[in-house]
Amino acid sequence: MKHRALFFDVFGTVVDWRSSIIAEGVEFNRANGWDVDWELFADQWRAMYQPAMQQVRSGERPWTRLDDLHRESLDMLLEQHQLTGLSEPEIIHLNQVWHRLLPWPDSVSALTSMKQDYIIAPMSNGNIALLTNLAKFSGLPWDVILGAEIAQQYKPLPQTYLAGSKALGLDPEQVVMVAAHNDDLEAAQNLGFATAFVPRPLEYGPNQDSDLEADGNWDYVCDDLIELAGRLQGS
Amino acid sequence: MKHRALFFDVFGTVVDWRSSIIAEGVEFNRANGWDVDWELFADQWRAMYQPAMQQVRSGERPWTRLDDLHRESLDMLLEQHQLTGLSEPEIIHLNQVWHRLLPWPDSVSALTSMKQDYIIAPMSNGNIALLTNLAKFSGLPWDVILGAEIAQQYKPLPQTYLAGSKALGLDPEQVVMVAAHNDDLEAAQNLGFATAFVPRPLEYGPNQDSDLEADGNWDYVCDDLIELAGRLQGS
Repeated sequence: MKHRALFFDVFGTVVDWRSSIIAEGVEFNRANGWDVDWELFADQWRAMYQPAMQQVRSGERPWTRLDDLHRESLDMLLEQHQLTGLSEPEIIHLNQVWHRLLPWPDSVSALTSMKQDYIIAPMSNGNIALLTNLAKFSGLPWDVILGAEIAQQYKPLPQTYLAGSKALGLDPEQVVMVAAHNDDLEAAQNLGFATAFVPRPLEYGPNQDSDLEADGNWDYVCDDLIELAGRLQGS
Repeated sequence: MKHRALFFDVFGTVVDWRSSIIAEGVEFNRANGWDVDWELFADQWRAMYQPAMQQVRSGERPWTRLDDLHRESLDMLLEQHQLTGLSEPEIIHLNQVWHRLLPWPDSVSALTSMKQDYIIAPMSNGNIALLTNLAKFSGLPWDVILGAEIAQQYKPLPQTYLAGSKALGLDPEQVVMVAAHNDDLEAAQNLGFATAFVPRPLEYGPNQDSDLEADGNWDYVCDDLIELAGRLQGS
């Protein structure tokens, strides 16, 4: 068994962020007498994700944890949707919906299986508190929390992936990067990591038109994480 | 429940490093036809631990992971004991005995119980690879690996503890530091952490004369981690 660890993208690959935010949002509407379109709200919030991280990647601003980037985006969105009157604890709670995302149906059992033979770790742009709380909320049995906060830099910059393998004392060749996003795998493959693609065609809702299939020369292309667990076991 | 997370010292508090090294050493003697006194060897190796870390704490040398400090000490000890002829992979394997330490009998069940209500994390001077491999070897069900490597500094300096609580988005007051060493608890208490003392009177062997009992005003003083789990559950 040449691979020792499996790194997982989390948002979209392991958990279904969009449905989870929409479901909480509907409850929020009910509790507050609102009429927010949470499909739109979730998509807008997520659309602010890459530009916010880009300010860090470019050096325009110093290292800032994803919880804080999410909060800045949320404050703008609340204003844009003219949602006023939330208390600070309520806004904190809403921002932490990213700590309460539900896993795709195959995630927990597949991770539990893969954990028997490999070190399993998130390689996510989420910060440590977010990923730790998310793991407890959703039952994700990580061995160790890796990702952007360890590196103080965001994927897909090389140092994020490399800080993870270095923390485990492993070479990139000993690690499989697992993601539903081709660009994530391309960045990892360029550094020597093995790669596994698992499509999540509903991540962005019913009209998703990206990452519907593998478009690189990945080591594993599987329908879901259960299939990947089986193929890794036989490798 | 005012506390959200429990931080654990690991060497001595959760795992029995001395017996584990001696047991592997006896196997090593058999395999190599050696006659090493592994009780002495283990004690000598451990005695080099604080001075090695002190070079980092003092700023005399830059951040260096514990695996590398252990290796430098091991190289000196092998020479001192005139143990020659080991291959590089064999020396690496011997150095990684610190990744293969056995838990005290109460550790795994108590941690598993405490994990239901709290985030549980090592707050150890061990590096991430060491603590991750140790957790897999011994079945320690950590939620997240914290400690010296996150802070790039060794306990008992304040930044090591504070980097851990900050990574979880918690104040020190929301975290209980658990240790078998009074000085570890004193450092944490000075920063505002809650404290729990669990004696491990055999950590240094049958002649241990330190840390046999609590000598500070700790929030919890328990006979073992099982008792602590019960008291935390009722709190």
